[in-house]
Amino acid sequence: MANTEGSKLWGGRFVGDNDPIMEKFNASIAYDQRMWDADIRGSKAYVKALEKAKLVTTDEMTQILQGLDQIFEEWSKNVFVIKPGDEDIHTANERRLKELIGTPAGKLHTGRSRNDQVVTDMRLWLRDAISTLTDNALQLMSTMVERAAAEIDVLFPGYTHMQRAQPIRWSHWILSHAVALSRDVDRLQEIKKRVSVLPLGSGAIAGTPFDIDREQLRKDLEFDGISLNSMDATGQRDFVAEFLFWASLCLTHLSKMAEDLMLYSTKEFSFITLSDAYSTGSSLMPQKKNADSLELIRSKAGRVFGRCAGFMMTLKGLPSTYNKDLQEDKEAMFDCYDTVHAVLQVATGVMSTLEQSAMTAALSPDMLATDLAYYLVRKGMPFREAHGISGKAVFAAESKNIALNQLTVADLSAVSPLFESDVSSVWDYRSSVEQYSAPGGTAQRSVAAQVEHLRTCVLQADPLTD
Amino acid sequence: MANTEGSKLWGGRFVGDNDPIMEKFNASIAYDQRMWDADIRGSKAYVKALEKAKLVTTDEMTQILQGLDQIFEEWSKNVFVIKPGDEDIHTANERRLKELIGTPAGKLHTGRSRNDQVVTDMRLWLRDAISTLTDNALQLMSTMVERAAAEIDVLFPGYTHMQRAQPIRWSHWILSHAVALSRDVDRLQEIKKRVSVLPLGSGAIAGTPFDIDREQLRKDLEFDGISLNSMDATGQRDFVAEFLFWASLCLTHLSKMAEDLMLYSTKEFSFITLSDAYSTGSSLMPQKKNADSLELIRSKAGRVFGRCAGFMMTLKGLPSTYNKDLQEDKEAMFDCYDTVHAVLQVATGVMSTLEQSAMTAALSPDMLATDLAYYLVRKGMPFREAHGISGKAVFAAESKNIALNQLTVADLSAVSPLFESDVSSVWDYRSSVEQYSAPGGTAQRSVAAQVEHLRTCVLQADPLTD
Amino acid sequence: MANTEGSKLWGGRFVGDNDPIMEKFNASIAYDQRMWDADIRGSKAYVKALEKAKLVTTDEMTQILQGLDQIFEEWSKNVFVIKPGDEDIHTANERRLKELIGTPAGKLHTGRSRNDQVVTDMRLWLRDAISTLTDNALQLMSTMVERAAAEIDVLFPGYTHMQRAQPIRWSHWILSHAVALSRDVDRLQEIKKRVSVLPLGSGAIAGTPFDIDREQLRKDLEFDGISLNSMDATGQRDFVAEFLFWASLCLTHLSKMAEDLMLYSTKEFSFITLSDAYSTGSSLMPQKKNADSLELIRSKAGRVFGRCAGFMMTLKGLPSTYNKDLQEDKEAMFDCYDTVHAVLQVATGVMSTLEQSAMTAALSPDMLATDLAYYLVRKGMPFREAHGISGKAVFAAESKNIALNQLTVADLSAVSPLFESDVSSVWDYRSSVEQYSAPGGTAQRSVAAQVEHLRTCVLQADPLTD
Amino acid sequence: MANTEGSKLWGGRFVGDNDPIMEKFNASIAYDQRMWDADIRGSKAYVKALEKAKLVTTDEMTQILQGLDQIFEEWSKNVFVIKPGDEDIHTANERRLKELIGTPAGKLHTGRSRNDQVVTDMRLWLRDAISTLTDNALQLMSTMVERAAAEIDVLFPGYTHMQRAQPIRWSHWILSHAVALSRDVDRLQEIKKRVSVLPLGSGAIAGTPFDIDREQLRKDLEFDGISLNSMDATGQRDFVAEFLFWASLCLTHLSKMAEDLMLYSTKEFSFITLSDAYSTGSSLMPQKKNADSLELIRSKAGRVFGRCAGFMMTLKGLPSTYNKDLQEDKEAMFDCYDTVHAVLQVATGVMSTLEQSAMTAALSPDMLATDLAYYLVRKGMPFREAHGISGKAVFAAESKNIALNQLTVADLSAVSPLFESDVSSVWDYRSSVEQYSAPGGTAQRSVAAQVEHLRTCVLQADPLTD
Repeated sequence: MANTEGSKLWGGRFVGDNDPIMEKFNASIAYDQRMWDADIRGSKAYVKALEKAKLVTTDEMTQILQGLDQIFEEWSKNVFVIKPGDEDIHTANERRLKELIGTPAGKLHTGRSRNDQVVTDMRLWLRDAISTLTDNALQLMSTMVERAAAEIDVLFPGYTHMQRAQPIRWSHWILSHAVALSRDVDRLQEIKKRVSVLPLGSGAIAGTPFDIDREQLRKDLEFDGISLNSMDATGQRDFVAEFLFWASLCLTHLSKMAEDLMLYSTKEFSFITLSDAYSTGSSLMPQKKNADSLELIRSKAGRVFGRCAGFMMTLKGLPSTYNKDLQEDKEAMFDCYDTVHAVLQVATGVMSTLEQSAMTAALSPDMLATDLAYYLVRKGMPFREAHGISGKAVFAAESKNIALNQLTVADLSAVSPLFESDVSSVWDYRSSVEQYSAPGGTAQRSVAAQVEHLRTCVLQADPLTD
Repeated sequence: MANTEGSKLWGGRFVGDNDPIMEKFNASIAYDQRMWDADIRGSKAYVKALEKAKLVTTDEMTQILQGLDQIFEEWSKNVFVIKPGDEDIHTANERRLKELIGTPAGKLHTGRSRNDQVVTDMRLWLRDAISTLTDNALQLMSTMVERAAAEIDVLFPGYTHMQRAQPIRWSHWILSHAVALSRDVDRLQEIKKRVSVLPLGSGAIAGTPFDIDREQLRKDLEFDGISLNSMDATGQRDFVAEFLFWASLCLTHLSKMAEDLMLYSTKEFSFITLSDAYSTGSSLMPQKKNADSLELIRSKAGRVFGRCAGFMMTLKGLPSTYNKDLQEDKEAMFDCYDTVHAVLQVATGVMSTLEQSAMTAALSPDMLATDLAYYLVRKGMPFREAHGISGKAVFAAESKNIALNQLTVADLSAVSPLFESDVSSVWDYRSSVEQYSAPGGTAQRSVAAQVEHLRTCVLQADPLTD
Repeated sequence: MANTEGSKLWGGRFVGDNDPIMEKFNASIAYDQRMWDADIRGSKAYVKALEKAKLVTTDEMTQILQGLDQIFEEWSKNVFVIKPGDEDIHTANERRLKELIGTPAGKLHTGRSRNDQVVTDMRLWLRDAISTLTDNALQLMSTMVERAAAEIDVLFPGYTHMQRAQPIRWSHWILSHAVALSRDVDRLQEIKKRVSVLPLGSGAIAGTPFDIDREQLRKDLEFDGISLNSMDATGQRDFVAEFLFWASLCLTHLSKMAEDLMLYSTKEFSFITLSDAYSTGSSLMPQKKNADSLELIRSKAGRVFGRCAGFMMTLKGLPSTYNKDLQEDKEAMFDCYDTVHAVLQVATGVMSTLEQSAMTAALSPDMLATDLAYYLVRKGMPFREAHGISGKAVFAAESKNIALNQLTVADLSAVSPLFESDVSSVWDYRSSVEQYSAPGGTAQRSVAAQVEHLRTCVLQADPLTD
Repeated sequence: MANTEGSKLWGGRFVGDNDPIMEKFNASIAYDQRMWDADIRGSKAYVKALEKAKLVTTDEMTQILQGLDQIFEEWSKNVFVIKPGDEDIHTANERRLKELIGTPAGKLHTGRSRNDQVVTDMRLWLRDAISTLTDNALQLMSTMVERAAAEIDVLFPGYTHMQRAQPIRWSHWILSHAVALSRDVDRLQEIKKRVSVLPLGSGAIAGTPFDIDREQLRKDLEFDGISLNSMDATGQRDFVAEFLFWASLCLTHLSKMAEDLMLYSTKEFSFITLSDAYSTGSSLMPQKKNADSLELIRSKAGRVFGRCAGFMMTLKGLPSTYNKDLQEDKEAMFDCYDTVHAVLQVATGVMSTLEQSAMTAALSPDMLATDLAYYLVRKGMPFREAHGISGKAVFAAESKNIALNQLTVADLSAVSPLFESDVSSVWDYRSSVEQYSAPGGTAQRSVAAQVEHLRTCVLQADPLTD
């Protein structure tokens, strides 16, 4: 490997040789080039501040801006050439700028450090990424809410502990996952607010000694605020950690939904059929149709949380301000973004194309045992006692090997004299479900209210409607 | 072990024997008893809702309320007796209620499930815990901010990469950590908002079939909102996961501060001396004074994140609604609370009692190499070039084995003709620091502005001033 | 809180006051008392080494040994009284020894540090704990292997991707989990070997300056080796980290088994019924029988890995030798032991009492689609082509809404002319399964060979047969 | 995107459209192509087994082998062209084989599934990777051991709790880290043993129905054993999890060493100077020389453990056998390999080039306070008392603001009458260190014994000497 010392930012001091493995270990250009656009935007704003502070002339500023525009073009057209010694995107862009415009390029970094530059780039990049993810999440929510609205009449078994519990609406199930997503969207906006803080002007550690107008920089780069303390600004990565955890919690929500859907798509449950586009076959077994999309969604919660765990462990025990350890921030951030971006879109595809069937047929009378207890409660029996009586009725039916609703009034009154012929009204799934009309319940009107609420959430959170 | 079947909530159905290991494995009373107060508060509000819905009579309600008050007394006085079969706090309190008031006790659980009960208890408990932690964090912030105000004139070496970087104010360092804490406080309030959502009335999965006034329950229990979907309400633990991660990020901040302070308290740095109350000695080496408090603070970031990681892993891939796996939520929540509660208080003690000394003496002229470059920048040299020149000056001083400020004007002008006699003005630490007067910088006025800003934050966030 | 300075090990140096919160934060007696027995055993061996090195007289040794025996008695009978100032088990035992025998007690710690003492205690404790867990794991393995032997004739559906794949033996499924456990047992023995290394004689950091016979100490305490380097010996906790990860991997195995069993115990699969001892009911729904034991087993993989993650994060970035951060080792170790100890026993109970039924009836002809392809392969068709043909047959049957084995020879020969009347032999589940007779396959003889192999593993690993 | 259905392995069954995002989400070719060599090796062995079982003719075998050799050439020369529809390396290689040799290619997958194929590839790949890492670790160990041998006479301060503790040899410090590495090497060989188990012949789940000679496959592919149970063989990834954790523990060792070295390379400690090849400068501050290599090493422990955490979380709660979630195994394995591979080499470079200096000068008399106590112990005073007396001497010196060894005999005898003029012998660092001559201690002969022991370890573990 050629000695590339000469082109390094720190210039004249080093005299030793290089270790090519160390060079590669140290370089981040392989992944941080992804922030080329943010890096150029930051530099364009910065040179304007330098000009205002009289650290570059208007003419120099113009040259620099034109040079940066040309670099933008090169990246856009995918013709930018990374050279040996371009250890990161900042170095690469500045090296290219010097090639294009010569001496004035050397003024761009005045009062700036890579410490404040890199975190400015990351915040710009992540702010855009969050907008995209918000949009993806809202599309998924919207798909779910509209499907819930359309299929509001479908009943099916509600499960707790993976065991049949009570009859519920299929839409109630759909919305339970949409509600979780709406919290994810809310949280993401809170994070965005903290991402949107300008660190530029913090230098390496102490701030800027020049007359840099940070408030103007904030406006130019459309940040919501400026950082309060230069040591904190350059050394903290809370916004990355928060984003990684956000991704983790969001994907545990989708892992939960995927797990449910995987159960429902087994032959044994047979409640849903995935579209072929979201299934794959087996290289060995011709009859197989595997829900690979769901398995991948489930798995990604692990991947993403691993990134969060790794980065948190990297942060733990670090001393303050910038340490090279922080270089771990970018790959984690990019990977979590890419993963959640894909998962949300695939989940939208899955939810918009899956077919449900045979759900209502799966309801069984034992799922109304609670209603049987409530029948007694309504006749004045304390619930604890009624619960016990209903349990005995279940046991009686099992002993006779018949369904719960096949017990005669005589059978039932043997268990409790409060049972009378009107007990037959208990065995209607639809009227059972309609009882749950309090807010949050599974009755038609409660579910419709949830649909309305979430539709409003989607509209209000939509970045396109701002 | 005696067969305790008879006292279990689910009554008459089970016929098999018990496995004492399974009994113990299944029981949560050993730790969830900590929520006894929240459990009673929730039940008192619920019985009022039952009375309003005509599911208990006014007289029954009165008996239940009086019974619950007596149970409250017993817990308060530490005389409540846990009995075999009390598998959780809900069972224990209801069992005791039945002993105290008989039959009406059996009506309390009408329409309620442990699924909505336990999460109501947790939310009540955590809401209070968050208030306490907020107060602890504000006390620490306040201690730091006031110390920063009092010691604003002290300069010391700022480090990046653990290497001497530039002279800064000691207060600037203190505030860099206080700013991180202020974000922690902000985040905690956002979480509190999501904790403060009433799940009661969600039943086991489907909602409540009775005329339970959830809005009234919300008011009685002082929640800010009510849950939107009963399946989500009983099956989600986002608020726990968020809290565990909050604790983790907060403690990485304090691990960072502790790491700095440990460095500063080594013999080699000798910047600070910990109070004896926060140090310990060695059982072997008589001269040792170890900063155990700081090491413990540093270590707890791991502990707390471990709880977060464990709970996230438990959540991953779970199907929706209540599954027994969720029982892992409580020990994690309690342990993180206890840990952060202790760490914040110990950190407050450390920060209010440590003595600083010899800091300013540690400043060295090489830390002004950037100023030397800026000297050239101000004479029109592009920064990149100036950076190289200054590096050569550093190298020249090292070669001569003298301090950077001991280079003569002749020495310097051999490196660059732009150096003139006025270069001597560079070698003043205090005027160096005063250059950094832009917002967030380390100049006196910038630091004073940070103090003011954070004082306002503390006042506004203080729960006592609401 | 009374000032307990006087009784602290480091004696006369400290002059400051105490902070009771810091005292509590610093103390480990609440949990490390669990190692009382190991601590006494270590001290008994150590005093013999001191006597041999002429650092205590024979008479003093005798007094110390008798005092330690009395302390052993007190702990055994649960009458040992912990006093203020007993910050850890070492301090408590030595404080008590001094009360019992006076001055000679002060000689016990000669040349020893808590740094080598605590890690000796931990290694003694963990060595015993590993023996117990090995026994627990072998009991579970043995239960599974014998059940597999007894029920070797039962066929049921094998699943991949949670979808029906091929007919297999139920015993083949059982053994797939027993094989994983056998690896866990193997790994645990490797860890035990590394646990069984004596650190005593390493002092605080530099070793021992006295004529302590470490080889004799090793023999007395029945360690397999002695530590190589005193800095490593006192500062490393690899054996703890290894154990925590072992627990994590072992419990992911059991989480996998639990997940399978939970599926099989749903109403929809109905392959197994858990004993009532390992199920619980619902406080709301009388008909519910929840597989709480399985859900708890599944959840504990998260808990235990959280401990591992937390401890690894605590270790990361620590400087070498003893730092107080290492105090996090013990709670993690104890909790993982307790958890795995309980899980293995509960899993043994579950596996020995669950009832299987209706498994074979669940086999369906589509699961023989691979056999249909192999039919063609045996007639010379390349497998890729045969796989496609069989897929077309599956599609044809689905289109006609009939089972795959209901396609006529005419139907089949329309798909491929190679199908002839002998194709009917494909539709026999038992002969299908018997084809898989290569090692590791699901044929009767292959499964029987696995049973034999694992029986031998259990016998050889059994610590009781050493 | 063109419909690429036709080229998929599962052939004729699917009728739906594709979602390009799902296609990309599902595909693993972007990273699993890295196993091209292992995949070809596995297929070559497999076709020989097919020929032996008469499932391909000798001629077909020859064609397949020649085709595979050509594919090997293409990959080797980096000219293999990945086409749309090549979702993984198995599909790509088989697709290419078909292009090259036509029909017989369709016979290669007979009785094989991607489930057993992929895990065979991974085991082959990882076995080689482990050999490389073993070699890297031994080179680092060897560098450290030889440096320790060469610099055995250098003393320097030993630290506990980051505070000066006792004088030790610099070589003792070096070896403390080498000993940790030797455990890493041992553990890696244990894992290799479990990696080296042949899964091929396990099919998708049930085993192979053909007369495949698994023992011959084992020999051909040089595995040490064959898998016991086909469900376990295809569904378990213990070997990956073990490897990821191994990488994590190994890197916490190196994070510990890096943390020490970072301290030692601060201006304040000034014990070591890193070679320029392993340092970098600052883009802002000309005087800075940052130990980036050490910071990166420290940070990677987090990265690698994050991979472990992510994969463990993905595994948790999965049902048995192959699920698509397992696809997360490969990127984690590759990334941990690449990271540890780089870290070990960079650490070797750092350790072989750093310069130590000024270490011995840093020793201070207070570090001999333990020796002062031992002086009294040797005169018969119980250690506890002697420790207190020595502490008082330290306090006396501090009060007088003099070094501990500057206390006069009169000063000392005021603290204890046992102090006499021979106490002056205590103040010799070298003789202090020589006391620690028990095994594992810091005396010259103990350290030399460690060197010898580790040299033997390196020789015995060296894969080149097998």
